[in-house]
Amino acid sequence: MSRWTGVGVSPGRASGPIARVAEPLPEPAAHPEPADPAAEAARIRPAAEEVADALFQRAARVTGEAKAVLETTAAMALDPALTAQAEKLVTGRALPAPRAVFESANGFADGLAAAGGYLAERVRDVHDVRDRIIAALLGATPPGVPDLERPSVLVARDLAPADTADLDPGQVFALVTAEGGPTSHTAILARSLGIPAVVAVRGLLAETGAVGAVVDGSTGAVELSAEPVPTRAAEPAADADWDGTGRTADDRPVGILGNVGAAGDARAAVAAGAGGVGLFRTEFCFLAATEEPGEDVQRAAYAEVLAPFAGKPVVVRTLDAGADKPLPFLDMGTEPNPALGVRGLRVARDRTDVLDRQLSAIAGAAADSGAQVSVMAPMVSTAEEAAWFAARARAAGIDRAGVMIEVPAAALTAAEVLAEVDFVSLGTNDLAQYVFAADRMAGALAELGDPWQPALLRLIGMVGRAGAEAGKPVGVCGEAAADPLLAGVLAGLGVTSLSMTASAIPAVGAAVRAHPMAAHRAAAEAALAAPSPAAAKEAAAAALA
Amino acid sequence: MSRWTGVGVSPGRASGPIARVAEPLPEPAAHPEPADPAAEAARIRPAAEEVADALFQRAARVTGEAKAVLETTAAMALDPALTAQAEKLVTGRALPAPRAVFESANGFADGLAAAGGYLAERVRDVHDVRDRIIAALLGATPPGVPDLERPSVLVARDLAPADTADLDPGQVFALVTAEGGPTSHTAILARSLGIPAVVAVRGLLAETGAVGAVVDGSTGAVELSAEPVPTRAAEPAADADWDGTGRTADDRPVGILGNVGAAGDARAAVAAGAGGVGLFRTEFCFLAATEEPGEDVQRAAYAEVLAPFAGKPVVVRTLDAGADKPLPFLDMGTEPNPALGVRGLRVARDRTDVLDRQLSAIAGAAADSGAQVSVMAPMVSTAEEAAWFAARARAAGIDRAGVMIEVPAAALTAAEVLAEVDFVSLGTNDLAQYVFAADRMAGALAELGDPWQPALLRLIGMVGRAGAEAGKPVGVCGEAAADPLLAGVLAGLGVTSLSMTASAIPAVGAAVRAHPMAAHRAAAEAALAAPSPAAAKEAAAAALA
Repeated sequence: MSRWTGVGVSPGRASGPIARVAEPLPEPAAHPEPADPAAEAARIRPAAEEVADALFQRAARVTGEAKAVLETTAAMALDPALTAQAEKLVTGRALPAPRAVFESANGFADGLAAAGGYLAERVRDVHDVRDRIIAALLGATPPGVPDLERPSVLVARDLAPADTADLDPGQVFALVTAEGGPTSHTAILARSLGIPAVVAVRGLLAETGAVGAVVDGSTGAVELSAEPVPTRAAEPAADADWDGTGRTADDRPVGILGNVGAAGDARAAVAAGAGGVGLFRTEFCFLAATEEPGEDVQRAAYAEVLAPFAGKPVVVRTLDAGADKPLPFLDMGTEPNPALGVRGLRVARDRTDVLDRQLSAIAGAAADSGAQVSVMAPMVSTAEEAAWFAARARAAGIDRAGVMIEVPAAALTAAEVLAEVDFVSLGTNDLAQYVFAADRMAGALAELGDPWQPALLRLIGMVGRAGAEAGKPVGVCGEAAADPLLAGVLAGLGVTSLSMTASAIPAVGAAVRAHPMAAHRAAAEAALAAPSPAAAKEAAAAALA
Repeated sequence: MSRWTGVGVSPGRASGPIARVAEPLPEPAAHPEPADPAAEAARIRPAAEEVADALFQRAARVTGEAKAVLETTAAMALDPALTAQAEKLVTGRALPAPRAVFESANGFADGLAAAGGYLAERVRDVHDVRDRIIAALLGATPPGVPDLERPSVLVARDLAPADTADLDPGQVFALVTAEGGPTSHTAILARSLGIPAVVAVRGLLAETGAVGAVVDGSTGAVELSAEPVPTRAAEPAADADWDGTGRTADDRPVGILGNVGAAGDARAAVAAGAGGVGLFRTEFCFLAATEEPGEDVQRAAYAEVLAPFAGKPVVVRTLDAGADKPLPFLDMGTEPNPALGVRGLRVARDRTDVLDRQLSAIAGAAADSGAQVSVMAPMVSTAEEAAWFAARARAAGIDRAGVMIEVPAAALTAAEVLAEVDFVSLGTNDLAQYVFAADRMAGALAELGDPWQPALLRLIGMVGRAGAEAGKPVGVCGEAAADPLLAGVLAGLGVTSLSMTASAIPAVGAAVRAHPMAAHRAAAEAALAAPSPAAAKEAAAAALA
């Protein structure tokens, strides 16, 4: 039994057998030359069939889109063009079989990419098939999340969105990663599934002998064991004692809203008691598209998400894309520091037509659904950018326009920004990343990304004051809003609404409702004066006790 | 004649024939198979000899280290192991010659990298030789800065430090780049050479027909001409009327200091009238090293730079390395956003032994040189990090310790940071990059990186006030300090010393001396209240007029 500590990012305690997410294989070497090229070439087809069989078996266990994806990928593994070309590279150029598959598949992928449109969408699948066949040839574990056949604790370097597309939430009892921070994809996924998670456990991957793990997502403690441990899911959090009212104990309003990206999220948010939506991420409509979806397609997709909120306020964020969140049809290229590059509204300045079509689709969806829609732009840095966006929104017939405050410059000039728009919403994940110059995905820097950092709270307080002076709302839609204790501190700093994943809503609503505004302000003052995130958390709790 | 506009980053007007920096060649394709492999293979050796000849010719024209570098590279092009292996790849695997050279050189480079130590230092040279031989085979322009045989205007996508190692300043009359910003390497180089430069000229590279250029580095205007234009160097700036006193007109002290990285810079700073050094970048001692230089080697190198400042104050910055400024011996790996990664003091937290040896070498060099040395840490985010660094500096026998303020969090908690150290120094280049979440190398975002941005000035003002309250110095050592008008504004914001490249010292010293502190404060107030960088500059100038 070895003990490890990381950053707990989703509370609860669970245990069970370890399932490891395999690391990507290195690029196969082009040597040594095989002694018997014909025999080497003959290994390729059986390996491809093995991969196809495994994928068809997975496909048989699921339904809907996941089934279609798996079947398509399986069929691709059997594509004779792929295997025949690889065989030819072995016999003709004396390459080892793994290298031949690598080159053959890459040539195939390049052809698809060049063809564009629907075919280019398949490039990622070809790479997946390529890596699976290579793993089969090498007798190695296929990359990505393994098929889980029993409830397990998933251990990974970090999880990418693609890794988790067909993750079975019933089989994952906890997540532990060596990298990532409080706002990484792993953390967000764990909180939305309501399972314990610990990230940034440095050195974790070197511990290869363990078979079982006990995970405490509240304290960040992880115990790894070479012996099996009991399989136990986390106790579901006791239903928070919340009356569904978005107000403090002395009846000062604080909006308790949902973050949504699809119709299912919207229904979950309503069920949890959300008074509206503080952040509707519209990227979902674009993720798989290699061409911009037509205005009608967008309008219908947005209306479906808005429908459960007829008569209620919904803040729709326009497309947040960039080199770090690439959308195929925008063709963003690569940048040395994508998080500091052309993303969010900066893309819209170059591609104003895309923004205008989206705004028009949002205005249509608002009319169709009856929701009280406002729009909000991501990655705004200056009052001039805010004014530009608000003018375009109004031209599209949307009366209420706001901007995200996630760039420090926008926070520092919040008064000027607020003069141009109707509201602002703090994106605390990105704001923390820039305020501390610490990549939110970098495990080594996880402490700097902690939303309890006094410097971050101070900047949030500056924006809260600017909002109060302007008489305009200041929301928070980053992960910070999902922490019940921090939620009260944010209200005390002048934040007028909190927007979060549905599972966090009852606990946050109850925490805000539990104290009068003066108590939240006292907790905020105590946190602001603390020298560290841990001390800030402690001071806030003590102020409320 | 076509007219273009970019961001003028180094003033003056010059014109002359265009010399283009060639783009890197794409990776050569592995097909089609050559019709006559033996003939194809026979092309390789003459191409390698052509490359070696050109390099030997360049070597004959220079002396010292540049000569040694060029001769070593030339010898490598002739290495029979490299060419023989490439020939074998053509005859054995039917690869085209460029591809064969590519693969052969890469295998060679991998072997050198694996061998480590001195040999690993040569990997970059192998890649350089590889690209030159491939260019010769393709009849393409070799990559990098061309040999200049007459005064020219250099046109490039952007310039990397390596591109300019043996640049002949006598032959470059102006620089124009399609990318880069006010704090890019190109801009810094141009200001240190005192030649006009315009960066972020979007679309510039598509204009391939032009042969001459007229460049105005003050206004950012560039005229390209298909006909030759007269060759004219920029008029040297009239010697600023400065009495060498680092004070305002009413005798309030404002340190006018140099930024240095090597002994030559130090002598130039003294000659220009610098009262000391506000930033001594110690990386130069480490740049080529694949192993950490011994303490004695460091001590001697630092003492050489400090010597011209015996009896004067010098701020030595400890090693500023990271994935974006990689040092081979630290083996930093890669990061998705290197500018938001483990760099500066964050590296020292992991490699404390390296920091301690450097501090000890600095203490020794201070004793050897008689300079009044203090030390300063890069990339500090919290007061706790500042305290950690100051304690290590004092343990090494260095009494005065400070930190850079280049992470927004450190600026927001400047009072707490100042409580732990003796002084701070604002790194305006990186600070602007993080405050605006805009990569300083990204041409498309150049306006956001403008040091006149009111949000940046506001944050600088917060640090200035914290310094005044603590009674401790606040320096600026970013490029902002080199702009005479902005220098006065910085003094008005509470900055107590300005540190810059030697060529800017007289003009900045004169600008600070020209007005009383009350006038600088009025200019600062005017700039703070402006809605944009351009308006801030105008308002400051109007306030002084």
